[in-house]
Amino acid sequence: MKKIVLGVDVGGTSTKLGLVDREGNLLAESKFMSTEYEFIDGFIESFEKHVDQLVKSIGPDHEMIGIGIGAPNANFYRGTIEYPPNLKWPGITPLASMVKRKFKLPTLLTNDANAAAYGEMIYGGAKGMKDFVVITLGTGLGSGIVSNGQLVYGYAGNAGEVGHTLVNVHGRHCGCGKQGCLETYVSATGIRRTVYKLLADYTVDSKMREVSFEDLSAEMITDAAHAGDEIAIAAFEYTARILGMKLSDVVAHSGPEAIFLFGGLTHAKDLLFMPTAKHFNNNLMPIFKGKVKLMPSELNNKNAAILGSAAMIWKHYEDGDLSTLS
Amino acid sequence: MKKIVLGVDVGGTSTKLGLVDREGNLLAESKFMSTEYEFIDGFIESFEKHVDQLVKSIGPDHEMIGIGIGAPNANFYRGTIEYPPNLKWPGITPLASMVKRKFKLPTLLTNDANAAAYGEMIYGGAKGMKDFVVITLGTGLGSGIVSNGQLVYGYAGNAGEVGHTLVNVHGRHCGCGKQGCLETYVSATGIRRTVYKLLADYTVDSKMREVSFEDLSAEMITDAAHAGDEIAIAAFEYTARILGMKLSDVVAHSGPEAIFLFGGLTHAKDLLFMPTAKHFNNNLMPIFKGKVKLMPSELNNKNAAILGSAAMIWKHYEDGDLSTLS
Repeated sequence: MKKIVLGVDVGGTSTKLGLVDREGNLLAESKFMSTEYEFIDGFIESFEKHVDQLVKSIGPDHEMIGIGIGAPNANFYRGTIEYPPNLKWPGITPLASMVKRKFKLPTLLTNDANAAAYGEMIYGGAKGMKDFVVITLGTGLGSGIVSNGQLVYGYAGNAGEVGHTLVNVHGRHCGCGKQGCLETYVSATGIRRTVYKLLADYTVDSKMREVSFEDLSAEMITDAAHAGDEIAIAAFEYTARILGMKLSDVVAHSGPEAIFLFGGLTHAKDLLFMPTAKHFNNNLMPIFKGKVKLMPSELNNKNAAILGSAAMIWKHYEDGDLSTLS
Repeated sequence: MKKIVLGVDVGGTSTKLGLVDREGNLLAESKFMSTEYEFIDGFIESFEKHVDQLVKSIGPDHEMIGIGIGAPNANFYRGTIEYPPNLKWPGITPLASMVKRKFKLPTLLTNDANAAAYGEMIYGGAKGMKDFVVITLGTGLGSGIVSNGQLVYGYAGNAGEVGHTLVNVHGRHCGCGKQGCLETYVSATGIRRTVYKLLADYTVDSKMREVSFEDLSAEMITDAAHAGDEIAIAAFEYTARILGMKLSDVVAHSGPEAIFLFGGLTHAKDLLFMPTAKHFNNNLMPIFKGKVKLMPSELNNKNAAILGSAAMIWKHYEDGDLSTLS
């Protein structure tokens, strides 16, 4: 019997499922499954059907040891999704216990950034590391912090919110209700805001002057920068300066061996990494200088969300605390 | 046989030693022992004599289970004191292994702020907590971060440097070589610098205009504030604003149940705590608001340094990893 794990990624519109072995092979992956059920019962019903199909598709001789779910606004300790602005389920949904009851299998729930950290630990560049950080650069900025070989969840299960550390107390308004949070500067949305600020501040020509804020994407900014657009290049420099500074604070807190950058914005490669590394090193305490690796996630072009959720189960299965936690 | 621990606090001029039981009773404490030996061998020789006297003083029926040492620039993993600016021993001194060889007992070495965190965990307000932070406000600002019940030492043994997170990239020069570090604003030295800045910026009368920078102490500033001195009151507000903001970043990183403030500056009590709590709560993400306790250390008026170093031994003895670590 080959041991496998079901990895699940609950997104705003669709949910992805995959069966993953210990080596990170995706043995089977579901076709499109909608997340947009008004009631959670409908979602669970559809979920069950998709899982049954997946399990049948890989044939017998497999033992599923657990179900790992990555979802927005997830609380690891409680196994709940809490007040998610981008899902249809209001209030608090005890998704882990509902899934556990249905499948009689250990089920863990975490947010996307923590899933990415589990993925990096089990399948990616953080194999063998006990202290590292994964920063996810998508619509927002997420973070998964690993200290002493364990994810840092904090007292209430919601630690690792580096995206909401402070850049400027009078700065940009953030969806969380504060002002000046890191993710309002450093994220796909943040760099768009920066482009608009720079278009306002300067008079140089830029193709991006023809694009509305809604239409502007991080990819467009990347392409423009590669084509020599001064505003786009300055926007990456601006983003990297703030990211580098705040990553030096991350190091002061948790002293990681490496920081991995994951997600859409990292596709800009050197445009982002070169200036970030410069500002990062300039702002490190001398005792840390040159000692903390800053690198792209090794899961950047894989089914990272499914792999990460599955990795969470493997990690706690091997730590021997899977049944206590779930 | 009653189990006891030797707790040691290595300071710039003197070293303090005490025998401590599991309940935090200081069974015996050494008289003055100098740290100012030019060579470590002389220090170790004197140390041995002091320990012998201490052990004799409490009579038989005691079993010493280990030696915990708090020292500046200590590396927990390596048991070394590394390039200490305030001690006479240059380079790297393997103090833990020297002491261990001499006494044939498990010996651990950590820095003052981490010792304070162990003390809070075993003897203070953090009993039963698995996620908390201790901030020490002395000449500098130290921090001990506990996540998942373990001190966060990071990859190289030197995590928890919240005092060197960034307030202002163009800000005050710091002893670490950077500019704008938190401890240049928030510490006994930091508030003196703030008083001088405010004396320069404003024209109001202040008794502190008669005091030189060298002579000015945090106690004087506290007394002046209590007496209604506007500059002193403004200096506490300035300090608290920066501390509150940066503590909200600490929460975003590690999501503690409580943050304990320890050390000289906390003697100012409400002068410091009231405005710090205000700015702290204003800057927390909504999900953390009202959920993180900010309180004075319960070890503030005790032999905290000796208790903390001893607590480190009790903690790892009870975790069962004392002999692996030492």
